[in-house]
Amino acid sequence: MPRQLHLNAFLMNTGHHEASWRLPESDPYAHVSLEHYVDLARVAERGTFDSLFLADGPQLWSNLAQRPAGALEPLTLLTALATATEHIGLIATASTSYNSPYNLARRFASLDIVSGGRAGWNIVTTAGAEAARNFGLDAEPAHAERYARAAEFLDVALKLWDSWEDDAIVGDKAAGVWGDDAKIHPARHQGTYFSVGGALNVPRSPQGYPLLVQAGSSEDGKHFAARYAEAVFTAQQTIEDARAFYADLKARTAAAGRDPGHLKVLPGIVPVIGSTEAEARALEQTLEDHIVYTHGVERLESLLQLPSGTLELDALLPGELPPEDAIEGAKSRYTLVVELARRERLTVRQLIGRLGGGRGHLTLAGTPEQVADAIETWFTQGAADGFNIMPPVLPSGLDAFVDHVVPILRERGLLRSEYGPRTTLRERYGLPRPANQHVSPELTAV
Amino acid sequence: MPRQLHLNAFLMNTGHHEASWRLPESDPYAHVSLEHYVDLARVAERGTFDSLFLADGPQLWSNLAQRPAGALEPLTLLTALATATEHIGLIATASTSYNSPYNLARRFASLDIVSGGRAGWNIVTTAGAEAARNFGLDAEPAHAERYARAAEFLDVALKLWDSWEDDAIVGDKAAGVWGDDAKIHPARHQGTYFSVGGALNVPRSPQGYPLLVQAGSSEDGKHFAARYAEAVFTAQQTIEDARAFYADLKARTAAAGRDPGHLKVLPGIVPVIGSTEAEARALEQTLEDHIVYTHGVERLESLLQLPSGTLELDALLPGELPPEDAIEGAKSRYTLVVELARRERLTVRQLIGRLGGGRGHLTLAGTPEQVADAIETWFTQGAADGFNIMPPVLPSGLDAFVDHVVPILRERGLLRSEYGPRTTLRERYGLPRPANQHVSPELTAV
Ligand SMILES: Cc1cc2nc3c(=O)[nH]c(=O)nc-3n(C[C@H](O)[C@H](O)[C@H](O)COP(=O)(O)O)c2cc1C
Ligand SMILES: Cc1cc2nc3c(=O)[nH]c(=O)nc-3n(C[C@H](O)[C@H](O)[C@H](O)COP(=O)(O)O)c2cc1C
Repeated sequence: MPRQLHLNAFLMNTGHHEASWRLPESDPYAHVSLEHYVDLARVAERGTFDSLFLADGPQLWSNLAQRPAGALEPLTLLTALATATEHIGLIATASTSYNSPYNLARRFASLDIVSGGRAGWNIVTTAGAEAARNFGLDAEPAHAERYARAAEFLDVALKLWDSWEDDAIVGDKAAGVWGDDAKIHPARHQGTYFSVGGALNVPRSPQGYPLLVQAGSSEDGKHFAARYAEAVFTAQQTIEDARAFYADLKARTAAAGRDPGHLKVLPGIVPVIGSTEAEARALEQTLEDHIVYTHGVERLESLLQLPSGTLELDALLPGELPPEDAIEGAKSRYTLVVELARRERLTVRQLIGRLGGGRGHLTLAGTPEQVADAIETWFTQGAADGFNIMPPVLPSGLDAFVDHVVPILRERGLLRSEYGPRTTLRERYGLPRPANQHVSPELTAV
Repeated sequence: MPRQLHLNAFLMNTGHHEASWRLPESDPYAHVSLEHYVDLARVAERGTFDSLFLADGPQLWSNLAQRPAGALEPLTLLTALATATEHIGLIATASTSYNSPYNLARRFASLDIVSGGRAGWNIVTTAGAEAARNFGLDAEPAHAERYARAAEFLDVALKLWDSWEDDAIVGDKAAGVWGDDAKIHPARHQGTYFSVGGALNVPRSPQGYPLLVQAGSSEDGKHFAARYAEAVFTAQQTIEDARAFYADLKARTAAAGRDPGHLKVLPGIVPVIGSTEAEARALEQTLEDHIVYTHGVERLESLLQLPSGTLELDALLPGELPPEDAIEGAKSRYTLVVELARRERLTVRQLIGRLGGGRGHLTLAGTPEQVADAIETWFTQGAADGFNIMPPVLPSGLDAFVDHVVPILRERGLLRSEYGPRTTLRERYGLPRPANQHVSPELTAV
């Protein structure tokens, strides 16, 4: 069997295109509709995806006029989806900056148990002052500090997830002995950001712990990923950049003493699918026509940390922009956007059109064959272990992908045709179940 | 129609009796089995209960040898149960001492949306040093401080739940206006324990906010309940004590400027049901026979804050015990246990037997008629608005209650025979949907 592609469905409201909610078919309440997400999860499962994924941030984004804002809390929504699906992995975003390790480790272990080992955690450090101000801070913690806290957070969470050995429950009714206290290992963690004394109050879960996913592309982000991540989401505009990123991350993973095969790289793609190329372009155009450009300007100014009113719609970006070093928010996204605009000499209007679909992710507009070809090329030429599929419109874009691209990928032997027996998310991604650090310290993945 | 009884099913592992896990029928993994809880939830729904409830604390209790420890995180489990049920309310315990208001308010709003308005929150301040040490503290915060933080936590949560007006989503596709920013009200809270700037990142939920439940019986606890709670769980051993508690809490609620009918008092009862009284006593005896008394002594010493080794199994409690004032943990439970032992001149062994079933809640052992009679008496004589049903063994004890006691209560016109149309948890308890403080400040419940 040839190497298998991994597919993740990135679900978001009415779709990844910022104007998708304005299409006639779209439900303005989709973002809080369980039914909407149940339908999407089932379509993804029909397409034998490895997993589905929900982004998140603990703040109300932007202003409400522009587009759907707010969302169901991801772990809550994924728990409901766990009961509506059987095989697909369930990856929730949660912030290391604005959670405590004890509560979050417990919640992921609980989802992992309830879903039969299908939980994943997209670990984010959360950029932005709005989030900080919801948690008692005046301003966003510095980028490096956020990643330092994230690393300690993971160390604590791993201690907690390993605090019960797998066979700690004895259940000896005759002797009146329910569990073996020798198999419980309190965290006893005293660090810079956290002090956590006890063992977790839930047994070790089917996967040991959730699949660890990460999406930071800055230096700090890649360093973190190499150490902890099992799957990495990334936004890449060209195959050259994607190959360089891929090679870099695999090398860093090896350098961190891990098997580079145990970290899967998944670039995001926005598939805009038509039965002809012209049809795909027309759909793209329809979406662009629905963009409200004044909103786009505001958001771009915010990303580039420029004063409001700096950008002109039909001009290029200003020649002088701050270096990535000066950005405390999403560093790598900043660089990607600036490079895209410079490389293709895009006006602000054109740049907003390009970002409207995928906020920096690659748009692939074309026929199912063209999309499948691009996927195969990236996959076989060292740019990806799989993809984060970000349909511009939901549910129609996911339907189109599953009905028209998936069969081609299956025909080419790149994607499973059925799930087979139930298994864990980590097994779907071809990863081993992690050993418990208290049982086989030498085998511990991290 | 006569006044209607409210019933809440307090679900816990293999049952409330500490020895229930040792019975042949019990599953030692019940506490982490979704199927076990789905079955229980469906039985409770068959019995047209108003709600079900999960207790919780963010620490691993006691030692593992004694009895099942750890549990699925309640909001996670209740989300899964929301998809398996249609009518029953879902009350999760969460701590104000070890959560941040932004995250917790979001999670309850999300459960409320996903369940169609069936979420409830049992607000606890969490006694004990073990929990404190999982969240960066060396010791448990003082009782009064925990309640002061709880009050501010509620004020912030209420601001967040009201931060979206009900009609903030406009969905005007033609104009490209999704929401009305004038209907968003950032929390802008700066207090002693919390500072929270923004609006919640989820729209106002079907109930406005979850049903607010509380279970503190100390002075601070009752003060808090009078101000915020819509339902109160309580442990009462005699109808006289229960009536005094009921009258006191209703008076306090009126004094706080609220309608005392908008706070429902639900004492806990442990129904031990047999087709004859002798059969019920025999079941009680079987359970007592499975108690491991050395464990009971350890737990009693811990509750009474006595050095290990102080208590003797066949002696009375020591004559000198600290006053409730000196207790920083669960004050009211302490007093209840000491008074029970003194009133009935129980030896330590007898006291442990009595506490084994309900940890201080009233055990009603008898025929279905006897249990129904006691329920009716308490309900009609000013001691209760309903009950927190705590079966000693699960699922059998809940089955017995639903199959044998519920029909009698229905016959007597005290309990609905069917749910009727889907409705919110708050409506089940006969409570109004709270007004949004930003729309009708004069109508706000709290
Ligand atoms: C596909 C993808 C999904 C992401 N989802 C989230 C998210 O849900 N929440 C969040 O705060 N950041 C999210 N990020 C941002 C990353 O976590 C990270 O902050 C960003 O890529 C910038 O990386 P850096 O901080 O290392 O520069 C996402 C990034 C990518 C590529
Ligand atoms: C039926 C019932 C359920 C309770 N559940 C919890 C719980 O899940 N977690 C918790 O920390 N405390 C729980 N408590 C304890 C109360 O929140 C409270 O701490 C206790 O009754 C002592 O009250 P006081 O602190 O006001 O004296 C419960 C109490 C009762 C009566």
